[in-house]
Amino acid sequence: MEPELIDALSLAQELIRAPSVTPDSGGAIGVLGDALRRLGFDVIDLPFGDGAERTPNLFARLGLSGPHLCFAGHTDVVPPGIEGWTSGPFDAAVRSDVLYGRGACDMKGGIAAFVSAVARHLGGGRPLNGSISLLITGDEEGPATYGTVKVLEWMAANGQIPDFCVVGEPTNPDHMGDVIKIGRRGSLNARIVVHGVQGHVAYPQRADNPIHRLMAILSDLTAHPLDKGSEWFEPSSVQVTSVDVGNDATNVIPGRASARLNIRFNDRHTGRDLAHWITETVRARAPGAEIDIRVSGEAFLTPPSPQLGMLVEAVEEVTGRPPRLDTGGGTSDARFISRYCPVAEFGLVGASMHKVNEHVPVADLRALTDIYAAFIERLMG
Amino acid sequence: MEPELIDALSLAQELIRAPSVTPDSGGAIGVLGDALRRLGFDVIDLPFGDGAERTPNLFARLGLSGPHLCFAGHTDVVPPGIEGWTSGPFDAAVRSDVLYGRGACDMKGGIAAFVSAVARHLGGGRPLNGSISLLITGDEEGPATYGTVKVLEWMAANGQIPDFCVVGEPTNPDHMGDVIKIGRRGSLNARIVVHGVQGHVAYPQRADNPIHRLMAILSDLTAHPLDKGSEWFEPSSVQVTSVDVGNDATNVIPGRASARLNIRFNDRHTGRDLAHWITETVRARAPGAEIDIRVSGEAFLTPPSPQLGMLVEAVEEVTGRPPRLDTGGGTSDARFISRYCPVAEFGLVGASMHKVNEHVPVADLRALTDIYAAFIERLMG
Ligand SMILES: [Zn+2]
Ligand SMILES: [Zn+2]
Repeated sequence: MEPELIDALSLAQELIRAPSVTPDSGGAIGVLGDALRRLGFDVIDLPFGDGAERTPNLFARLGLSGPHLCFAGHTDVVPPGIEGWTSGPFDAAVRSDVLYGRGACDMKGGIAAFVSAVARHLGGGRPLNGSISLLITGDEEGPATYGTVKVLEWMAANGQIPDFCVVGEPTNPDHMGDVIKIGRRGSLNARIVVHGVQGHVAYPQRADNPIHRLMAILSDLTAHPLDKGSEWFEPSSVQVTSVDVGNDATNVIPGRASARLNIRFNDRHTGRDLAHWITETVRARAPGAEIDIRVSGEAFLTPPSPQLGMLVEAVEEVTGRPPRLDTGGGTSDARFISRYCPVAEFGLVGASMHKVNEHVPVADLRALTDIYAAFIERLMG
Repeated sequence: MEPELIDALSLAQELIRAPSVTPDSGGAIGVLGDALRRLGFDVIDLPFGDGAERTPNLFARLGLSGPHLCFAGHTDVVPPGIEGWTSGPFDAAVRSDVLYGRGACDMKGGIAAFVSAVARHLGGGRPLNGSISLLITGDEEGPATYGTVKVLEWMAANGQIPDFCVVGEPTNPDHMGDVIKIGRRGSLNARIVVHGVQGHVAYPQRADNPIHRLMAILSDLTAHPLDKGSEWFEPSSVQVTSVDVGNDATNVIPGRASARLNIRFNDRHTGRDLAHWITETVRARAPGAEIDIRVSGEAFLTPPSPQLGMLVEAVEEVTGRPPRLDTGGGTSDARFISRYCPVAEFGLVGASMHKVNEHVPVADLRALTDIYAAFIERLMG
């Protein structure tokens, strides 16, 4: 039986019409599983978590030998909001050759393009010189505790770690083919609470102003750039996101002051080193301060490699322009995958993601399908 | 007719039993006026303000010639609170030779001691070699808009400015005779609101973090001591009393950050100069910031003089110890009086003022009466 061709637009519409707002599966992961089974994939449902935390996930693989290419992504979407949609967020309407709907670019469109590219590659009837898998989670936009992380653990335990992974997140700021992301900065959040001794402003020597200590701490933490950037990364950045005291009495030195900060850090740092630095800096100014530090992702980088070179060539072949290799922007599940294998991120144009009237030009869907197909061809044609 | 003797404890009790919580007169100012009339004073009611703001005040004078000594004070009291009083706050109960009640030390006890001292001085039948007046307001603990300030204007307009003024606020931290206040620091409150550009922490270059600007401003304002103090003053002190952002989103750089600060400043500064310095400092870091500055009192000092020397001697004669001359602590109406004439503050022990179970030992009431009498004797005996 020869696998059918799969149209990227039709599959994208079918996926959008399954309203999979995190943590609801909405049937989307089932739609995808059915399409992959029709292409001959072995499809395994991998739900993790119990009760309200139960998260639908899917791993599918076609082929047994190397090279093993994995496509990673998510079928869940952020809530559509209520106001401002020209057509229903789950209608998947096409107007003037543009597909509208929640998930159109982030990232049901990207998933549909990849599946369509695989179907085209298989449609020629040639044997697959390698294997292709998909790692799809139903919880990337939420806490992500029982999503990609757990599937990766399962893959490692079952000999399914790929040679190279492409994450289909929308990486292009403006036009198809602008940017391949080859790494991401790490992210750390800290909360600092300084306790002082409350008192009257007329008697500062009897009080201990926690704001003054906190200001000194925040000055120490922001006074000097953490670094000047590295070969592939922008400089790391410390941003204080809130300072709160809540003292309305103008003649009272308060007893407590708190601050929150976020650090986006490059590959010159680890979350552990930064946490140590923050703790030492705080302790030096306020030995009794409370410090709560959470590292939500380490910096990672997939340095240039033959596989990455093939992805770059595929983009250039379709768009006529070489993509920029970039490590900026927010975090994605690529931070988890990078612990196991080289990973690059490339998908649609993300300008409308998470917004009202999220959309993707049908031409972009076709171009992305062409790029994924050209990449597969290079890798295992 | 020879003026009657007036017992300081009895008059203090009568005043406490008139519940004059600001802005209520509670009859206290009438009790005082009656006592003064019995001593031969000319008593003038000087209410200022209209409607809800109407404030009872009293000016009374005995004698026409100089030297003219004025005693200034207030009959209003802060609210008693509800819980914790061993006896009713307006009962004026005496237990174990201690008088309990709201206003016992701040400052109905002080007023009673002064009136008792005047009565004793007059009781000898001697002519008064000078004149004695009382400037009493019913709003010192409140906004004070229609209190001492307005009475002073009236006194200036009517040729009643004294040669020396004693404010009967409780100046002693621990024991009778500890401290005469000969000045007070000025007080300035400022509110600073910095506007930035909100953005995502992953793209700091597209945002403008108002917290970072505000921290730099507050560092500039607190980095160096304003001065090292002066002959009679402690160093000026800048205290940041609140910083508020209220941003709960850990991945968002906020658009706005605000701070409040208070400066207690000595006679090396004026409110105007400090306001200029704050404004320039803020503008250099955040040209568009909102700045709201209020000077609630300038620093003032009554330098040593023959009259002050007599008050010091009077304290030492009664307590056996020389009082310390001090300019610390909060503000009082002395800041207004200092614009017209030399002023010193001396009264009871203030440790229990504004608290539950406010009290004064009866022995302290007697000692203060003795000190005021000894001062009057030196000044016009
Ligand atoms: Zn996404
Ligand atoms: Zn008072």
